[in-house]
Amino acid sequence: MTIAENWTVKSQQDVAYSVEIVKDVLDVSNLALVDGESGARRLIVTDNRVNDLYGDRIRAYAQTNMAEHRLLVLPDGELNKNWQAVETVLEAIDNFKLDRRREPVIAIGGGVLTDVVGFACSIYRRNTPFVRVPTTLMGIVDAGVGIKTGANFKTGKNKIGTYFPAVGNLLDMSFLGTLDKRHISNGLAEILKIALIKDERLFSLLEEHGETVLASHFQEGTDYEIEIIARSIAGMLEELEPNLWEHKLERLVDYGHTFSPNIEMKALPELLHGEAVNVDMALTTAIGLHRGLVNRDQAETIFGVMHQMGLPVSHPVADQRLLLQALADTTRHRDGKQRLPLPVGIGNAVFVNDLTEADISAGLKLVAVLGAKAASAIAPQVAGSEAAPVASEEPV
Amino acid sequence: MTIAENWTVKSQQDVAYSVEIVKDVLDVSNLALVDGESGARRLIVTDNRVNDLYGDRIRAYAQTNMAEHRLLVLPDGELNKNWQAVETVLEAIDNFKLDRRREPVIAIGGGVLTDVVGFACSIYRRNTPFVRVPTTLMGIVDAGVGIKTGANFKTGKNKIGTYFPAVGNLLDMSFLGTLDKRHISNGLAEILKIALIKDERLFSLLEEHGETVLASHFQEGTDYEIEIIARSIAGMLEELEPNLWEHKLERLVDYGHTFSPNIEMKALPELLHGEAVNVDMALTTAIGLHRGLVNRDQAETIFGVMHQMGLPVSHPVADQRLLLQALADTTRHRDGKQRLPLPVGIGNAVFVNDLTEADISAGLKLVAVLGAKAASAIAPQVAGSEAAPVASEEPV
Repeated sequence: MTIAENWTVKSQQDVAYSVEIVKDVLDVSNLALVDGESGARRLIVTDNRVNDLYGDRIRAYAQTNMAEHRLLVLPDGELNKNWQAVETVLEAIDNFKLDRRREPVIAIGGGVLTDVVGFACSIYRRNTPFVRVPTTLMGIVDAGVGIKTGANFKTGKNKIGTYFPAVGNLLDMSFLGTLDKRHISNGLAEILKIALIKDERLFSLLEEHGETVLASHFQEGTDYEIEIIARSIAGMLEELEPNLWEHKLERLVDYGHTFSPNIEMKALPELLHGEAVNVDMALTTAIGLHRGLVNRDQAETIFGVMHQMGLPVSHPVADQRLLLQALADTTRHRDGKQRLPLPVGIGNAVFVNDLTEADISAGLKLVAVLGAKAASAIAPQVAGSEAAPVASEEPV
Repeated sequence: MTIAENWTVKSQQDVAYSVEIVKDVLDVSNLALVDGESGARRLIVTDNRVNDLYGDRIRAYAQTNMAEHRLLVLPDGELNKNWQAVETVLEAIDNFKLDRRREPVIAIGGGVLTDVVGFACSIYRRNTPFVRVPTTLMGIVDAGVGIKTGANFKTGKNKIGTYFPAVGNLLDMSFLGTLDKRHISNGLAEILKIALIKDERLFSLLEEHGETVLASHFQEGTDYEIEIIARSIAGMLEELEPNLWEHKLERLVDYGHTFSPNIEMKALPELLHGEAVNVDMALTTAIGLHRGLVNRDQAETIFGVMHQMGLPVSHPVADQRLLLQALADTTRHRDGKQRLPLPVGIGNAVFVNDLTEADISAGLKLVAVLGAKAASAIAPQVAGSEAAPVASEEPV
């Protein structure tokens, strides 16, 4: 041994996890939740909303398929996404005397619940596996397929957390049947994001069926329902997989997430996450139009789809001043460069670093015009009235 | 794109960090603490003990070499290794408006302090770099060179935490000058561990100089001081590097850590970590002798070195009952197998899975004999009295 006085330690951590679309995960004959092994011990964590709707089925499932279980019910909602909730999960794991190598925690709920449970599991003995069962569309296509966990801290959304994959992600679309329509729209925003940045076919599916899946909550069992969900997840994972720890700061999946954090926090609790994201996407689509990256037809089509899917394209808090602040904040988080994805046509995107105040101002004006057009163009299909004429004076 | 309904996501996280023995890290002309860049912004976290001894020097250093700084002082001690301390660090990071990409947090203190700061940094925005400056011998050779962070939770030592390397580890032996002697012994236990399991030369150094470095606090600037520290760190890193996330359960560095967690917790606050580890190593050396893995001479030599370095070889709480419970607990944590490292001679080890109650019982008896012999054999050098005759009736 030579006696060094400095060392460099290098290693690689292998990460692997599965994401699976499953049918009726709470059916007692489906052993996916217990990894095929009946007679298991499991700690199950859910929120009070899911418990109201599915608590009986969860208990029946546990009684049939688990030798021993405990069901912990946390309060739902963004305001309960805090350390106290994390600590409650830690205590439950501790009290359950869980065997970390054989008894993954099962988290069944929306993004808040699965983020909090994932965070607790990641720090309990530095690594306690969990299985994630998202019950919202947002969870199925977004929060439930990546490796981020977290909780809010002080005023900061997800300011504390970890990168920690669930060992299994069981995506069961049947939960969407009981989700309220606004939360279907909420999830559709993230699907639209994937469509806009990289999947024209997915956009066509949304254009054709967006209104239908919103009305049916993806419960008609059609091929396009599964195709919409599957393409969205596949697109998301394709972007996440090579950049799980977000070392690369140019992330296509950040599309819609440049201005939206500030919009969402300022409007809280008025806008859901996906709604704030859509306000961001509407603005950046309009900016794309202003810059000639998206043509008029494409912008109108995009706004039409947003409108059909029940998503807002603007919000009073999203004024010039807040948007500039949001851009400054995001630029800081992206290490001094904007690295702003802008749509190129439909299904492509480009990163820019030179967005100006004038671009935002022009974008806001165009949003007003495109939004009004989309609302009036859709109205006839619903109310039978005539479409408003296209305003011709707006700057393009 | 083919429409799959299940996906496996695979990736690798690259981890790299440096460990460096540095001279006088608080000297204002030494820019190691600010990564060579004078005029930096830094949040510095230390504990009240270190602040009492080095606060003035830290402030002088910061005033000279930092454009802006804040010094956060946490209460020291195992009882303050809790979430509240973590939260205090999180708040300080938040209030400092730290730029995560350019302004690593600086943690200066013992293992409790650096573990807590590392934990806070690992979860703040899921990754906020920190630089670690251990001020104890335990920190320099053990807590300060791996990637574990943590805090106690309920009754569990380090029950919550993360695997998160410090970007830089600056090991400055001059801090040891003000460390009390008992904490020098405490760190020597971990050095002895490395010697026993894999480095006969390191053991010889301890045999020859252990008493001297304990008396001098490693402040004489001799070659053997640096060789003892450097060999210990090199041996530790050699074991850690291929198994940073502890997926492999047979860990040589777990030597001395099979029975000691229960001993330490039961005796709290009577035994320091290294003292409990030494009680464990004394027992397992005796068991090694009982099993014929270590011969009589070797066992006596080992006990002699332990004694010279001021380390206890037994403790009233470490009785047969507690030791059996500890073995059961450790076996559970090692996935159902003992995977117990036992010394083979001096500088080698083997894993066994068949330790029995009789082995422990025999080990305890031998510890009493070997301990008494070491104490009496050393006594003459100090007091000039005669060495006690070797008891001949003990079972070997």
